Amino acid sequence: MKIIEVIQNILEANETIAKRNQQLLDKHKVFALNIMSAPGAGKTSLILQTLTRLKGKLNVAVIEGDVASTVDAEKVQSEATAVVQINTRNMPESCSLMAAMIESALKDMPLDNMDLLLIENVGNLICPSEFTLGEHKRVVISSLPEGDDKPIKYPLIFIDADAVVINKMDLLPHVDFDIAAFRRSIEGLNPKAEIFELSCKTDEGTERWHSWILAQVESNVIKQ
Amino acid sequence: MKIIEVIQNILEANETIAKRNQQLLDKHKVFALNIMSAPGAGKTSLILQTLTRLKGKLNVAVIEGDVASTVDAEKVQSEATAVVQINTRNMPESCSLMAAMIESALKDMPLDNMDLLLIENVGNLICPSEFTLGEHKRVVISSLPEGDDKPIKYPLIFIDADAVVINKMDLLPHVDFDIAAFRRSIEGLNPKAEIFELSCKTDEGTERWHSWILAQVESNVIKQ
Repeated sequence: MKIIEVIQNILEANETIAKRNQQLLDKHKVFALNIMSAPGAGKTSLILQTLTRLKGKLNVAVIEGDVASTVDAEKVQSEATAVVQINTRNMPESCSLMAAMIESALKDMPLDNMDLLLIENVGNLICPSEFTLGEHKRVVISSLPEGDDKPIKYPLIFIDADAVVINKMDLLPHVDFDIAAFRRSIEGLNPKAEIFELSCKTDEGTERWHSWILAQVESNVIKQ
Repeated sequence: MKIIEVIQNILEANETIAKRNQQLLDKHKVFALNIMSAPGAGKTSLILQTLTRLKGKLNVAVIEGDVASTVDAEKVQSEATAVVQINTRNMPESCSLMAAMIESALKDMPLDNMDLLLIENVGNLICPSEFTLGEHKRVVISSLPEGDDKPIKYPLIFIDADAVVINKMDLLPHVDFDIAAFRRSIEGLNPKAEIFELSCKTDEGTERWHSWILAQVESNVIKQ
């Protein structure tokens, strides 16, 4: 079938470029995280929080992916070593970043001066699960107000995640969210995923997240 | 370019089927709403709330679109005249319902016994804006915890909306959301859109929403 073939070709081409991106990042000892979530779950907040808290410890650069606007890039600009905004509005696949967009962004970034690259994907729980970008690890953020059934409804993105962040824990008294049920769903789909419960707003639970990132960056440098 | 051409073909084929769906719905005097939002903004809650409150006034059927699972269909089953669940997981475009899926679902529905069809699209602020389904009006739900910047980041879906529902108003004291700024963004993109502020949890503000639906259904019947 013609459509399926074209999609297959896009995915294969993407995979090839993603591998090239990872080789480039490895050469410059840059550890990259692909951060994915539904719109408004807190990708930018987590990135901002991480930038502020890891300042002085790591040089952190950011790639911001959005359909339109530069509001996120503006928010993180003052805290990051470098920021590149990608707008996907007029691209053939506007619902996810793709490896070719990252390849192009990396050309403008000071790779030798970067330890960590945080890639904020387009807000979407479906498309980004299909496209690897060259990242070393994949993070999915779920936030309490979205409800605890998201892993059941959007399983693919959770199956491939290395870490799942439950954000907006400060709203727990005000929403219906069964943390045990959510954890059971994740463990059923992907028992190896690290799970973090935190609030970017109050800082609650973020220390374990920062330690995890620092350990990842360190083990990546040693591995090479 | 090959990819663009294929996408163009898919969109044109979708448009043709969507028109056929609308003709079929019109023939049976069924008014259809396409309900779109990010994951967890409250599509199912709004549908459940509407079903319960319009019971006795209208016969309401539901089509539930999800990547995977039947949890939403199970939730609305007891309240609706008919329910069909569509899972898009293995379809070429899994991030949106498409007109062909609706055409197929309508074959299993008691059209002569339906006044209103609520179509819950896949949780996504990007893909569903590209595919019309045969609906008469389009509704986008935004919820307070997602933040007030969603119209700026995902403009297309808001530009085409007939109604924008701001849900989870009960969380206003606990989140940072500037309602005036959100309204300004919507008015800038799409001044004709009706805006509703409500909470499916507390029922606050839902009466205006029900009146709007009843008026839409009525004017649709008269029009034909």
